[in-house]
Formats: sequence, structure tokens, C-alpha cells
Amino acid sequence: MAETIRDAVAAVRQKVGDKPARAIVKLRAEGRMGEGTRCDMRVGSFEVGVDEPVSVGGTGTAPNPVQLSLAALGSCQAITYRYWATELGLRLDAVTVSLEASFDTGAFFGFPGAAGPVSPSDVHCAVTLEGPEPEERYKELVTVVDEHCPILDLFTRSIPVERNVTFA
Amino acid sequence: MAETIRDAVAAVRQKVGDKPARAIVKLRAEGRMGEGTRCDMRVGSFEVGVDEPVSVGGTGTAPNPVQLSLAALGSCQAITYRYWATELGLRLDAVTVSLEASFDTGAFFGFPGAAGPVSPSDVHCAVTLEGPEPEERYKELVTVVDEHCPILDLFTRSIPVERNVTFA
Repeated sequence: MAETIRDAVAAVRQKVGDKPARAIVKLRAEGRMGEGTRCDMRVGSFEVGVDEPVSVGGTGTAPNPVQLSLAALGSCQAITYRYWATELGLRLDAVTVSLEASFDTGAFFGFPGAAGPVSPSDVHCAVTLEGPEPEERYKELVTVVDEHCPILDLFTRSIPVERNVTFA
Repeated sequence: MAETIRDAVAAVRQKVGDKPARAIVKLRAEGRMGEGTRCDMRVGSFEVGVDEPVSVGGTGTAPNPVQLSLAALGSCQAITYRYWATELGLRLDAVTVSLEASFDTGAFFGFPGAAGPVSPSDVHCAVTLEGPEPEERYKELVTVVDEHCPILDLFTRSIPVERNVTFA
């Protein structure tokens, strides 16, 4: 697997050559929601269901968007560890992630007195790395992964979102 | 469905009463990755698969984390429209979302000359609202939704993430 990743990344690097802009790809998602809170998102050939729990009037068929953002953060940490362990030549047998965040339903629903942000807050991400390398090398890996993890960067950076709303 | 949502939110509001902190819930996700890039995340009773495409050495079995973050943003917009349309007493028959972002694989892989952020950038989110109300009322809804959408807030706000890494 390490060879597969190394070869694939080398091929992308070769293709990009001395034109860094060639490395920029467009990613897309789309979806539709009907009467309830169930939302069927499509990402390329994959479907991602999103819903709200029954306790807040949803149909409880899938994770909600904030839970999905935590799944994105945890998996992105793990996958970034995989790529950068390969790049640095470190054996990494497994990565385990465990995430927790606070969410203020009062801020979301607009209850009086709600003071918190509507985004998740108090975000904690615990990572366990398994492998035979000296701890010192994994610590180097942690530093590099912190600098290259897209969804960690998404959480900690302020990213503008251009929106267009159409009335049909 | 509108009644179900209204009743459920009213029940939460009643339970919270004059103690806004009671409205804060903890959300969690966890997961594990083995040798490759496939990551199996668990959110409550739901499983969310995450992977990288074959073109970059992944196994191509699921969306990648950045695609998942776009699915979270789009579904969160849609669901926030659902809740706030109900709160404001507007009929809303359907919400369609379409998202696009740039992702710099060169920044992620650390290619020389890559200048972009590792987070998604140039994020666009197109929303279509369907329903019989006057356009003016839907425009009010847009303003309120912008103020209450958790994942829009996550993108546009800088949110600290506390991390702990353990070596097993």
C-alpha cells in the first residue's frame, strides 16, 4: 500500500511539474431536501445521507451536519498521517481518532439568552498512532501533519463562502 | 412534518427554560484507519466511510474529507432553511444545494512552489428554494439562515481544535 501511495503521488508530482496551479482540483457536492430534515447529498458517485435526530423533530436516519464535520476532521487527520508517514518513510500500522465538540442547540434555534456561537466549539481531537518507529520520529510526523491537514486548517482558518440563493 | 419540528423544538425550549447552558449538547465521532487510506468513522449508531481516490493512491471506496466537508456545508444550509422556515411560519417545499471548492493537492502533498492553503478555498454554495411564499419573505429567511447555519459559521469562523496524540 505504501508503494501504491508513493507511486501515485510521484505521478501527480510529475504531472504538475513546474506549474503549481496544475495541482489545484475542483471538488463538488450537491443535494436536495424535501419536506423533512433528511438531506441526500451526492459527491461524485457516492451518496451521503444527512439528517437530524428525532429529539429535535428530525427523522433520525443519518448523522447531522456537525457530526459529519467531526467525521471529516477525524478522517482527515488519519489520512494525512497516512500520506505523510509514507512521504517520510515511517511505518504506521494504524491510526485511531476520537473527537468531541460542544454544540449549542439554543444558539441554533435562537432561544433567548443563548450566547454561544452556532458553530461547534470546545473541539477536541484525540489521535493514537500505532507502529514500530521510535517515538521521536512520530513526533516529527505530528508536526508535519499539523501543517498539512486540510480539515484541521478548515476549522482553524476563516474561509469565505460565496453564496447565491435562487427562488424557484 | 412542520408540526413535528415545531413541537420538538418547543419541547427542547421548555426543557432548557431559563438555563441556556442546558441547550449545549456534546457531539462525538470516532474512527480507525489501517494500512491504506480507507477510514471507517462511527457517529453514534451511524457509519461514515471516508477514502481517497485511486488517482492519489487511495482505494476509492468513499468521498474524501474535503468532499465530506462540502456535503456537511450543503446539508447544513438545507436543514437550517428547514428549521427556520418552520420557525418563521413559511412554507418551503424543497431546498436544492450545489457546492464547489478548489483544493490544492500540491499544498497537501508538499510539492515545491505550492502557495495555496491546504484547506478548501474559493468555496461556492448555490441554494435554490422552492415554495409558494412571496420572494420577500424568502429573502428574510436567507438573512436569518446566514446567522444560524452551524457549518457556514464553521467555515467562516476560526475555531480552535485541541489535539492530543498518543503513541501506542
